[in-house]
Amino acid sequence: MAHTEYVYDLADGDGTMKTLLGGKGAGVAEMHRLGVPVPDAFTVTTHACVETMNRKGEWPETLWSEVEEALTRLEERTGLGLGDPEKPLLLSVRSGAVQSMPGMMDTILNLGVSDETVAGLAAGGDERFAWDSYRRFIQMYGEVVEGIEPHVYEDALTAIKNEKGVENDTDLTTEDLKELVARFKKLSNEALGGEWTSDPKEQLKRAINAVFQSWLNPRAEVYRRANNISAALGTAVNVMQMVFGNRGETSATGVLFTRNPSTGVDELYGEFLVNAQGEDVVAGIRTPRPLEEMEEVLPDAYRELLDNMKKMEQHYKDMQDMEFTIENGKLYLLQTRNGKRTAAAALKVANDLVDEGVITKEEALARIEPAQLDQLLHPGIDPNHGQQSIAKGLPASPGAALGKLCFSADDADVRGDNEPVILVRFETTPDDIHGVIKAQGVLTAHGGMTSHAAVVARGMGKPCVAGAHGIKINPEAKTVTIGDKEYGEDDTLTLDGSTGEVYAGELPLVPPQINDDFQHIVQWADEVRRLGVRANADNRTDAMKARELGAQGIGLCRTEHMFMAEDRLPAVREMILAENDQERAAALEKILPMQQQDFEGIFDAMSGLPVTVRLLDPPLHEFLPNLVEQSLKVQELELTGGAAEDIEREKHLLGQVKKLHEQNPMLGTRGCRLGMLYPEIPEMQTRAIIRAALAVRKAKGETVDVEIMIPLVAYAEELKRQRAVVVETADEEIANSGEEINYTVGTMIELPRAAVTADQIAEHADFFSFGTNDLTQTGIGISRDDAEQGFLGQYVIDEVMPRNPFESVDRDGVGELVRIGVDKGRSVKNGLKTGVCGEHGGDPESIDLFNEIGLDYVSCSPYRVPIARFAAAQAVLNQQK
Amino acid sequence: MAHTEYVYDLADGDGTMKTLLGGKGAGVAEMHRLGVPVPDAFTVTTHACVETMNRKGEWPETLWSEVEEALTRLEERTGLGLGDPEKPLLLSVRSGAVQSMPGMMDTILNLGVSDETVAGLAAGGDERFAWDSYRRFIQMYGEVVEGIEPHVYEDALTAIKNEKGVENDTDLTTEDLKELVARFKKLSNEALGGEWTSDPKEQLKRAINAVFQSWLNPRAEVYRRANNISAALGTAVNVMQMVFGNRGETSATGVLFTRNPSTGVDELYGEFLVNAQGEDVVAGIRTPRPLEEMEEVLPDAYRELLDNMKKMEQHYKDMQDMEFTIENGKLYLLQTRNGKRTAAAALKVANDLVDEGVITKEEALARIEPAQLDQLLHPGIDPNHGQQSIAKGLPASPGAALGKLCFSADDADVRGDNEPVILVRFETTPDDIHGVIKAQGVLTAHGGMTSHAAVVARGMGKPCVAGAHGIKINPEAKTVTIGDKEYGEDDTLTLDGSTGEVYAGELPLVPPQINDDFQHIVQWADEVRRLGVRANADNRTDAMKARELGAQGIGLCRTEHMFMAEDRLPAVREMILAENDQERAAALEKILPMQQQDFEGIFDAMSGLPVTVRLLDPPLHEFLPNLVEQSLKVQELELTGGAAEDIEREKHLLGQVKKLHEQNPMLGTRGCRLGMLYPEIPEMQTRAIIRAALAVRKAKGETVDVEIMIPLVAYAEELKRQRAVVVETADEEIANSGEEINYTVGTMIELPRAAVTADQIAEHADFFSFGTNDLTQTGIGISRDDAEQGFLGQYVIDEVMPRNPFESVDRDGVGELVRIGVDKGRSVKNGLKTGVCGEHGGDPESIDLFNEIGLDYVSCSPYRVPIARFAAAQAVLNQQK
Repeated sequence: MAHTEYVYDLADGDGTMKTLLGGKGAGVAEMHRLGVPVPDAFTVTTHACVETMNRKGEWPETLWSEVEEALTRLEERTGLGLGDPEKPLLLSVRSGAVQSMPGMMDTILNLGVSDETVAGLAAGGDERFAWDSYRRFIQMYGEVVEGIEPHVYEDALTAIKNEKGVENDTDLTTEDLKELVARFKKLSNEALGGEWTSDPKEQLKRAINAVFQSWLNPRAEVYRRANNISAALGTAVNVMQMVFGNRGETSATGVLFTRNPSTGVDELYGEFLVNAQGEDVVAGIRTPRPLEEMEEVLPDAYRELLDNMKKMEQHYKDMQDMEFTIENGKLYLLQTRNGKRTAAAALKVANDLVDEGVITKEEALARIEPAQLDQLLHPGIDPNHGQQSIAKGLPASPGAALGKLCFSADDADVRGDNEPVILVRFETTPDDIHGVIKAQGVLTAHGGMTSHAAVVARGMGKPCVAGAHGIKINPEAKTVTIGDKEYGEDDTLTLDGSTGEVYAGELPLVPPQINDDFQHIVQWADEVRRLGVRANADNRTDAMKARELGAQGIGLCRTEHMFMAEDRLPAVREMILAENDQERAAALEKILPMQQQDFEGIFDAMSGLPVTVRLLDPPLHEFLPNLVEQSLKVQELELTGGAAEDIEREKHLLGQVKKLHEQNPMLGTRGCRLGMLYPEIPEMQTRAIIRAALAVRKAKGETVDVEIMIPLVAYAEELKRQRAVVVETADEEIANSGEEINYTVGTMIELPRAAVTADQIAEHADFFSFGTNDLTQTGIGISRDDAEQGFLGQYVIDEVMPRNPFESVDRDGVGELVRIGVDKGRSVKNGLKTGVCGEHGGDPESIDLFNEIGLDYVSCSPYRVPIARFAAAQAVLNQQK
Repeated sequence: MAHTEYVYDLADGDGTMKTLLGGKGAGVAEMHRLGVPVPDAFTVTTHACVETMNRKGEWPETLWSEVEEALTRLEERTGLGLGDPEKPLLLSVRSGAVQSMPGMMDTILNLGVSDETVAGLAAGGDERFAWDSYRRFIQMYGEVVEGIEPHVYEDALTAIKNEKGVENDTDLTTEDLKELVARFKKLSNEALGGEWTSDPKEQLKRAINAVFQSWLNPRAEVYRRANNISAALGTAVNVMQMVFGNRGETSATGVLFTRNPSTGVDELYGEFLVNAQGEDVVAGIRTPRPLEEMEEVLPDAYRELLDNMKKMEQHYKDMQDMEFTIENGKLYLLQTRNGKRTAAAALKVANDLVDEGVITKEEALARIEPAQLDQLLHPGIDPNHGQQSIAKGLPASPGAALGKLCFSADDADVRGDNEPVILVRFETTPDDIHGVIKAQGVLTAHGGMTSHAAVVARGMGKPCVAGAHGIKINPEAKTVTIGDKEYGEDDTLTLDGSTGEVYAGELPLVPPQINDDFQHIVQWADEVRRLGVRANADNRTDAMKARELGAQGIGLCRTEHMFMAEDRLPAVREMILAENDQERAAALEKILPMQQQDFEGIFDAMSGLPVTVRLLDPPLHEFLPNLVEQSLKVQELELTGGAAEDIEREKHLLGQVKKLHEQNPMLGTRGCRLGMLYPEIPEMQTRAIIRAALAVRKAKGETVDVEIMIPLVAYAEELKRQRAVVVETADEEIANSGEEINYTVGTMIELPRAAVTADQIAEHADFFSFGTNDLTQTGIGISRDDAEQGFLGQYVIDEVMPRNPFESVDRDGVGELVRIGVDKGRSVKNGLKTGVCGEHGGDPESIDLFNEIGLDYVSCSPYRVPIARFAAAQAVLNQQK
């Protein structure tokens, strides 16, 4: 083995060494090991990058000498020399993170070409190729490594094309290119104040360093945040012998997926360009040809490519995304990785691989990204829309998107917070990533199925129509002309990413279609998972949808939305403003039948399954006007001579608002604290619940398992007393009905005190439901209302915390409290039923933790139910590992 | 043994059985066991009371028959019979809680006297005594058991005295009393609609039940809350043969303390009344005579009393509070208990008992109530005041009190929240307890040193002047006339409870005088305790005081008060409103020298000791105007045609206020979150701290152990980064100075997440200080600002929680989090220094827990330091048990 501390030769690595060599470095090493033709190379490890970050940009002492040694070995193996005038070695210098971050970091190609070596490079016979490589190198190295503004080179290129009266780069002659190189060198020198270096070794050093630095560039940061990749991992740098797809008509370059990444169908899916470098395909500058056509053009290389393609797929047991180059008829594979795919494709591939006997059901489950399933659960365009499309591009990422038009990523980033927007671009670049994140969908005029926009959109599950050639975009004027019509920022388009059609205006959407692949996979998940999956729903419609999507009950039926409804607010305010018990009782009497009606709808939809109803939770002032507004209203009436009776009335209301105002309502008089002060409220709610359950049984012959949940318990004594109110009322209603009905009474564990005293609380609880939203707020001491716009956002950016704890449960802190709660609860009540409700219940990472802790079920929003079923199965598989 | 499940005969009990028999029942049983003369008796257990409460007032099935059996045995032993016309047995029925609650519950005396037995009772020769007993019985039984309004009897008594032209009850003749009994019976029957029962057994049953019920009466509830006694304990009921101190001139009754309960001096301290019942002494209706005078009146009984007094003191090894009755020359002791005493007396008695060899130092420490020491630490009247007192009463409870006058307990209860008040009453009754709690001191016109007001005030450490005969109180007019001057609600008096003097107006006060007894005891405490005791101080004056009171350093030096100072607020606001880093830096530059100056003062006072400085903690909007007020200000300017520039300025400020406004500031951008957003702030503060420490060393040759504390850490990463800012700055300052100085960097553990991830946090911390105030707020989910006026107050009243968790740490919840934090912290850093700061650090119960958990020190306000030293010693003794 010839590796040193920070540098590994191609033959020293293998596929298992991703963490050290990056995905790309480990991938080529593995290919080499398997006998697949790859260019020779060495890899500077992620460890070197991390060490360099730790030293604030300074390299570890031995790093450069290690690179020099590896270079010498590479020169020996290839018989070429970096800077050798006769047999020049040209190198590519590429980033290679542990997890793929396509296009986010820097790459330098053609390193090694110079005044000294350009003739040697041309010696093969193609002088134009050599000079074209040279001008490409200066441009790329100048921009990426030396930070020279791209327009410096672009302007010079445009100028020479104008001078020569040609339209395409390819129309420039060798002499033109020599002239261009001379101009590029002059411009570069000017831009750097005479500091342009032409020493290839120095260039290599700087190129490696530039890749290190690009790990921390803004677009990479945005991508990492969107994909939860830690900045601490660092990137490897792959230094590889250049092979050229642009050495004439027997050279080519291309990319392929071993199966269709949009649909998952086992069919050839790739693109190639003859006489081109790989960047031409990925960047979407020239529109490439379908891979099938290569069979005619380069039949031998085509067959070898197909053989290797299947070999790699079988080796990795998954659909591969590969890059290749053919140099003078010889095939090289530059990279292979598990291909990014749509959720539909992921399901189809998984299904097929199971059918083909390549992987087991469990392996299939393990490799699907549950969050990706989300896109299958989004609406599509109603097939009966009857509209004519105004344009058609490539169906680059499926699904329907509609929104107003944005013509820059920055615009989309801002406007996307407030309204649905479609990002319209010639072609997206890695710099546009923040706009893609905020857009509903992406429409591009250039680029193919494997262009940047398409790859990124598919990964995010965003609809994308790419390469819609008929459209004319004017980014300055913020318009796009399609046919003879101009569309601006205030116009809405609808994209069908599954067909590539573009429609004017808003088209009707239909609910997501769950196909057989989906059904199969989720059924496998159901066979494997241990956790139950329920839904959070507080109306009949949501309850029906939840059941349809496989919910095994309702884990959280909030009752406050019922209180908030416009037609009920007057009665609710009467209750709050009641001056005595009688007035309060009268108001509650009005609310009771409304609540009962709500519960009947929900119970009807869920009959035969458990429904957990949480008693009133929010502080009462949420039902009253805002303190500042009411104060201003009173002052305005007073200063503008309002009627005395108006002033009196508004002042009285202000008094009530002030009385109920709290400095920290999150920690205030809410949850069971309300019920403790006004036992009439839980009494009324219990009556409504039990009456509804009885009514549903009378109507349908069966009803739900009623679970009444007391919120915000901190002390066992609270639960004991509130339980007594519920039980007394429920038993009275049941006795009056002459029927039999079962119900249980439990509590939410959503305060740290409740978690650490769960053994005391469990004495009075039939079940626990962990309210991890509030437990996050109190456990970490952050107010969600304030923090996400405040320090918390900054913390996530700065990686003070691994993820936003409201999106994914804080494993070490809040997760630990949940674990303590479960363990203590079960220490006194063996097998106590425990669940979690709230948004974490639909988050796969959180579900993994809840499975590990041993909860009985999770509960999430109806549309997350399939994802939760799936994630629950993966959690079991993770635990078995 | 003749006891049954719920009833114990006198001979069946002993002094260890307080929980079951109550303090009184166990006490008389123990006296009986020791051969001290007590009347024969049986006790209904606390268990019977608790069972009755559990059954909502219904007695356990066997209880009444058990009482009947015990009564039969008592009749056999005494040779008397309840209701027996010839040899009538008369009974007292008294409450007896586990912990003494003097006067709070009901008592019925003379039960057994009736038309049938009155003659038999008179057979001894004293007919007037018999009829007087009869009328007393009807009055007491009617009021207490049947709930008849007291005025019914009082009016009748007044009427007959007027008719007969006599002034005192004692002037009524036998015939008058017979007449009075007839009228009482008629009035009682009328009041009850003819339901008055005259069956003594039925009366006994109802009397026992009345005592049970009185456990739940409002004044008992108030007392229990003030003394942290659980309502779940219940009371025992002592049924005892009546003995009579009112059988003529050889009969007497009295109370005594075996030592002086005000000063602790070993001297006779008691009062007696000849020919009177005990209630006459306690209730303060007749002013009793000093006990010494009994030697002349009843020499034999006097000597026997003194013998028994010393016997009991030696048996209990503590100063005793005893009640006695002499019936026809024969002495009975009715009760003995450890005497309530002032703190000064407690110290003196403890010191003396140690000197006398009765108890060890540890026993002495164990029996002093640490909270009581507080009163010794309160100011007294400046001896050089040069004022003439306007009245003089008995020095019933020492210390100085001044305040405006209140003439009812209800008034004192209300006004005492807002201003210092003195409660002025003829005599307090148990119904006045809520007013005494709120008053600074108590002044009464009647009653002696053992009257209700005196006993209660001493127990609470409130100054009291009792029996100031010269004063004329008019409760209706709310005035008191002293000499020829009238004082009303707006006048202020000063009481000297140590001399009994009353002064008009406010007298100058002097700091508390700590005497030798105090010094001794606290030195013993220092020998025993393990916990260090530090003080919370953020200015030089407090730091000096803390050191004087024995603080071993500063555990919490808050820096925000320095920011709040009026002369600094402009610079602080500049910092907050800074539009860019430069403006902010300029503002911080102004604040730096001010902060440094503060620290120099504190460090100078504390040199040689550790000082923990907490970096800025509160949210920035605390330094800005209130949102509602600023909103109103802007609207008012707009509606009243304010100057455009004023509107502009106030609007701009309003914008800033809104920007910094948070829904839940407690959970907002504060603590280290500020430092993370604006590292300039911790940097400036660190500079000020280190410069101050260096300056003090230069001036005095020594300086403090600097401990810099990062507040509100939730994530280890926060501490890691903030620590880096502190260390970099501090090291720079130290390097610039050319001196050497040590400092450490630690954190507050005040969030549940910090506690459960303390192992991660400890990696970056030199010490932990538990901020149990905030840990209580987040751990239990209560906002202190809101809750104490809201549900929390009700929770304490309703005993949902054992105590207000802001007064005494919540052992099971917050205490558990502290324990987890300490254990996890030390799991990675053996011997990690841990302390607690905040108000719990001065609370004895909390200190007990912190000692048990193994913290290194507590920190509290300077005046609590001696109490904390003391409580820390008791904690060690408790743990040894």
